[in-house]
Amino acid sequence: MRPVAVVGAGMTPFGEHFDLGIKELLPLALAEAVGSVDKGIDRAQIDAAWFGELTTTDGFPSGVLADSCGLLDIPITRVENACATGNDAVRNAFFAVASGHVDVALVMGADKVRETSARATFWDWMAMTRDMAWDYPLGLVAPANFALHAARYLHESPATREHMAMVAVKNHHNAVTNPKAHLRFEITVEQVLSAPMVVAPFGLYDCTPQSDGAAALLIAGGDVADRFTDSPIWVRGVGLGLDRVMHQHKRDMTTFPATVRAAKQAFDMAGLTPADVDVAEVHDCFSAVELISYEDLGFCDRFQAADLIASGATALGGRLPVNPSGGLKAKGHPPGATGVAQCVELVEQLRGTAANQIEGARVALAHNIGGPTAVSAVTLLSTDRG
Amino acid sequence: MRPVAVVGAGMTPFGEHFDLGIKELLPLALAEAVGSVDKGIDRAQIDAAWFGELTTTDGFPSGVLADSCGLLDIPITRVENACATGNDAVRNAFFAVASGHVDVALVMGADKVRETSARATFWDWMAMTRDMAWDYPLGLVAPANFALHAARYLHESPATREHMAMVAVKNHHNAVTNPKAHLRFEITVEQVLSAPMVVAPFGLYDCTPQSDGAAALLIAGGDVADRFTDSPIWVRGVGLGLDRVMHQHKRDMTTFPATVRAAKQAFDMAGLTPADVDVAEVHDCFSAVELISYEDLGFCDRFQAADLIASGATALGGRLPVNPSGGLKAKGHPPGATGVAQCVELVEQLRGTAANQIEGARVALAHNIGGPTAVSAVTLLSTDRG
Repeated sequence: MRPVAVVGAGMTPFGEHFDLGIKELLPLALAEAVGSVDKGIDRAQIDAAWFGELTTTDGFPSGVLADSCGLLDIPITRVENACATGNDAVRNAFFAVASGHVDVALVMGADKVRETSARATFWDWMAMTRDMAWDYPLGLVAPANFALHAARYLHESPATREHMAMVAVKNHHNAVTNPKAHLRFEITVEQVLSAPMVVAPFGLYDCTPQSDGAAALLIAGGDVADRFTDSPIWVRGVGLGLDRVMHQHKRDMTTFPATVRAAKQAFDMAGLTPADVDVAEVHDCFSAVELISYEDLGFCDRFQAADLIASGATALGGRLPVNPSGGLKAKGHPPGATGVAQCVELVEQLRGTAANQIEGARVALAHNIGGPTAVSAVTLLSTDRG
Repeated sequence: MRPVAVVGAGMTPFGEHFDLGIKELLPLALAEAVGSVDKGIDRAQIDAAWFGELTTTDGFPSGVLADSCGLLDIPITRVENACATGNDAVRNAFFAVASGHVDVALVMGADKVRETSARATFWDWMAMTRDMAWDYPLGLVAPANFALHAARYLHESPATREHMAMVAVKNHHNAVTNPKAHLRFEITVEQVLSAPMVVAPFGLYDCTPQSDGAAALLIAGGDVADRFTDSPIWVRGVGLGLDRVMHQHKRDMTTFPATVRAAKQAFDMAGLTPADVDVAEVHDCFSAVELISYEDLGFCDRFQAADLIASGATALGGRLPVNPSGGLKAKGHPPGATGVAQCVELVEQLRGTAANQIEGARVALAHNIGGPTAVSAVTLLSTDRG
């Protein structure tokens, strides 16, 4: 099967861009990705695009990308898979390039969350990522539905709210030195524990902010990648997993089967194991979700996540740094952009140019979980072609 | 590159299914597709799914498909590209199978348009398929924006409202003998011309109905297709084209560049020409759109569509029957399902089992145009592997 490589990557800062619309954010991210291509790339060399987007109020998403980036003469597919949208957009572009029918593909993700219009708001979008018959009308917006999982996880595992707080503290720390991050300030475990409660067991600092932003990847077939760079980053594995939407149908609240399925697909495709991963961007929309995901991704055994975070293994300088960018928690979370931006961070890590560089990183993992914990996407990147 | 074949196809009747939700329509369509597989197929043999969907009020689309069809253990990607969603879902599944990473893929499309909820309605969806800064606030909902094109087309070409009416009369005639069609009654040119005006030059019978329905295709790699059938239908070409979203940016209102781009990609991939096509399902959301599309798809020269429809060439028994199913106009138009259902009709035509069978058909074309005429998707199917 045809190998696929990343040849360019870029993103806007994540944050509250009240002065920028999605039509400005998209070309900014694309320009940075184009500028990152070692040997240069011409717009005419891009054959097709995939666009991960959830919440725009600007209208027809594929057309917004085509119009704002001057990409009218290539096909553009909008992919939507709740908060797993970004890595699923990468996955669909990967298949097209791997098929040989597309040589060079653009993957973009973008969302404007800090903006509401009269017609379409964040809450309209939120509703469409849940079950509308039971869960949403009963109040299971994202913080509430993830809180059900976290509460049970705290009950069954050795993890405590302090361990959750350690995740938030770590990711805020990493964001301070990442110029693209939304929340660039340190917090302490004490601040997390004493913050106003959003929904138990999540206080304010256990929750991701709502951010605006865009991210872009340029990927190419392995046989044409050397037109663009002498140091391609290889897309070694992609995976997408589903699970039941309604919470009354979930059999075990302490694990996300969608993540387990997505990770298995990606690792199987790559011929790699969790032990091979040097750096990861993990979907920490709420602090406890990073803990549960350590286990679901195979970074530690079941109910060992508390030990893993407490050991410092996932901090900068640890054996497996997680969310060196700051993660969703502190880098920010424009849903459609998040997964693509995880890959941008990891491409920079593998190129050796990241803001918080993990020395010698060769294998990197990006992970999203979205919807009512009903969908997950995983991407494995490597300096080695495999 | 790996050939890709359709091995199963099925759909629900299109119509006003007030008694069925999308969670009922999806398994009905899937069951018919599974039942159409000559040698049978087991659910465990389906590796991945793509879901074209625009308007559901039931919540998270990928999860709705997974839950309602019991497909929790495979990846499901939702594709959205306005009314070109269906054939773009086919295109994305095609790439995945062609890549060799997926052996058997399910493509489903579905929408419930004849249903509104308090939160999400047809009109909310309609807004998100336009430009929200100018076109939609100025009133350019679908009938109005297509009417701008039709009015100019009538002005510049020899076509008249009578030629538009001939499209509607033909497609209603075809629907009468299609048990899956929404509007199964004959109409006359006189009735079309004297019907209440919706937006000039479209009277009521120039417009597609709003329908509910679902459709499903099972596709497989050419090297594994014989597990399922001895008479596969080959996906020979896929194409997707974009164009400017805002009408003030369109340079020529009498042609749809999105269609021209999508058709060129599909024909180039297939190594076929418009003259090779034996039967087509063309996006006749409004009668004049079928005429303009004859030209954009290369079925006749520019401004010759009036002659083509008047000659009877695109009627049953003509040299190139168009919309033997009844088309969007009379078969119906649940947007996410429409393109997939076009392919279901064409697979049946190529298998020799269609309700209005075109004898000896070997090459078939499906065509969608959507958004504010800003996106088009084309799929080419054939009995010949090529």
